[in-house]
Amino acid sequence: MTELTKVQMSEGPAKRWVSYRSEIKVLDCTIRDGGLMNNHLFDDGIVKAVYHACMEAGIDYMELGYKADKKIFSQDEYGSWKFCSEDDIRRIVGKNESSLKLSAMADAERTDYHSDILPANKSVLDMIRVATYIHQIPTALDIIKDAHDKGYETTVNLMAVSTVQEPELDEALSILANSEVDIVYLVDSFGALYSEQVHYLIEKYLHFAESKGKVVGMHAHNNQMLAYANTIEAIIKGANILDASMAGLGRGAGNCNMELLLGFLHNPKYSLRPILRCIQEHIEPLREKLLWGFDVPYMITGLLNQHPRAAMQFNATPDRGDLVQFFDRIIEEE
Amino acid sequence: MTELTKVQMSEGPAKRWVSYRSEIKVLDCTIRDGGLMNNHLFDDGIVKAVYHACMEAGIDYMELGYKADKKIFSQDEYGSWKFCSEDDIRRIVGKNESSLKLSAMADAERTDYHSDILPANKSVLDMIRVATYIHQIPTALDIIKDAHDKGYETTVNLMAVSTVQEPELDEALSILANSEVDIVYLVDSFGALYSEQVHYLIEKYLHFAESKGKVVGMHAHNNQMLAYANTIEAIIKGANILDASMAGLGRGAGNCNMELLLGFLHNPKYSLRPILRCIQEHIEPLREKLLWGFDVPYMITGLLNQHPRAAMQFNATPDRGDLVQFFDRIIEEE
Repeated sequence: MTELTKVQMSEGPAKRWVSYRSEIKVLDCTIRDGGLMNNHLFDDGIVKAVYHACMEAGIDYMELGYKADKKIFSQDEYGSWKFCSEDDIRRIVGKNESSLKLSAMADAERTDYHSDILPANKSVLDMIRVATYIHQIPTALDIIKDAHDKGYETTVNLMAVSTVQEPELDEALSILANSEVDIVYLVDSFGALYSEQVHYLIEKYLHFAESKGKVVGMHAHNNQMLAYANTIEAIIKGANILDASMAGLGRGAGNCNMELLLGFLHNPKYSLRPILRCIQEHIEPLREKLLWGFDVPYMITGLLNQHPRAAMQFNATPDRGDLVQFFDRIIEEE
Repeated sequence: MTELTKVQMSEGPAKRWVSYRSEIKVLDCTIRDGGLMNNHLFDDGIVKAVYHACMEAGIDYMELGYKADKKIFSQDEYGSWKFCSEDDIRRIVGKNESSLKLSAMADAERTDYHSDILPANKSVLDMIRVATYIHQIPTALDIIKDAHDKGYETTVNLMAVSTVQEPELDEALSILANSEVDIVYLVDSFGALYSEQVHYLIEKYLHFAESKGKVVGMHAHNNQMLAYANTIEAIIKGANILDASMAGLGRGAGNCNMELLLGFLHNPKYSLRPILRCIQEHIEPLREKLLWGFDVPYMITGLLNQHPRAAMQFNATPDRGDLVQFFDRIIEEE
């Protein structure tokens, strides 16, 4: 019997899912990950709609975007949510007088964190999530310490784990477990993981994190239509903070769908209806332009354990839909 | 370590998926299950394209449609693949001089099997799959015996298992294990099952079937975006015949996508490219009219463990897309 079975299924013969694990928290990354499809150029109305839907639905955290360095990224090219200035956030949320916590992501080596991340008591943000590749861990540790010392909750999101060799991963997890970070995320950036690999990795992450009082999270991508399924598998193994986005909006094939996840969790503090309304009125109307979601080119990059870059570029050309051309090209380049 | 891990993953630190289980067979149900979205009215060109793609891709079985009783169903309303007459099939496949085996489905109480199923040596069909609800098992057993005695491979597809009580299921599986049937399918008609339930049920099916020399199969639906994920879980637990369809074409939210499944299986006898070509040239062009695939109304019926009928009816009205209206209506009716 798994952990989930013990807490989530009755023991009766019909095996219905009748309870829930109250420790689980949900983070909405609709605007942050979705911003990777439109250079973070969302109308305020959409950001406000997602914010209000998260509050009404009982979501625990909402991530608005990145704290990108304006010396590296041009404000002519990127929208507000690439930078998440305090003024821009307050334009949407005011003082955020709600139980919904707000988060922004700091990319290692792309964030002027000493200057751009205010002390937590001067910011409406509650959490800083540090995104890092394996070779940037020392920088990530410095951002984590900076944000922690400034009073934020912190997470570390070790990206593209499906390309990391095991000795390096073990070393990274050991270092992170001894850092100030509160939450360590398993991040399947390429949508390349299968359930048994999720099981193996979540167990490994917990092995390092749990004894140091840290929580393990899951951030999945849908390249192989497994984002939601793998999020369930992470829950089964003990992940207690879960990323999801409305209608799966996110880079390329997108993320775990929030509507699926809330339906699964059964915690009465969550409501599905505000999420459905927001999807219907604000997210689905974006689909024709942003074109996220499962699609064969993303499947192929996921199968090959590659960044979805090639698939995203292909899908932005008039050849979109020529699946055989994309398949032949990527096999040739392998 | 699961069975799959033992055979499909290397023991090295990177845990790549480098081998395959050679017993696994794949059945294409594109035309049969997809026919539920268009009253089986496919142009011959599409059926031929799927047939040739299956041959080129190394698929083991292709299912063309139903052997429905013409006294019950009108040939004015339904296309050839509702009835699968010998002449209609031969119009597509000739004598089927290939290693691809052909199948048709016989619905319990809707098939005049004594008359309409020819002796196997007079038919181009190789397999009869008997679809049955739990209360129709005696009829199903008679169809199985009839088809078996006529020389066919046979399967039994016990539908809507997520609504069957466990004592009845155990009794049914015990009876079926002692019948002439070759293959017993786990069928998640409502797309309502989660991975742990798939594990539990596949283990149960194998418990009854394996000692009698029978194989267990998996037929999944994508209402909760878990058709492919649940098919993987069925593989892990020992299912050795798997249904899938091109681009997931099938009733409502559709089936496990063939392109995902072949990418996963790693058996060199299968080729992905002919499937991608068929999807691009013949299946995707149908999407605008047939409108299958994951969609919130199907998710809601899946969550509620209901037949997708209400969602299919709703999606055929001009209100399609009004997710909140559908949610409110179905919650009210619960």
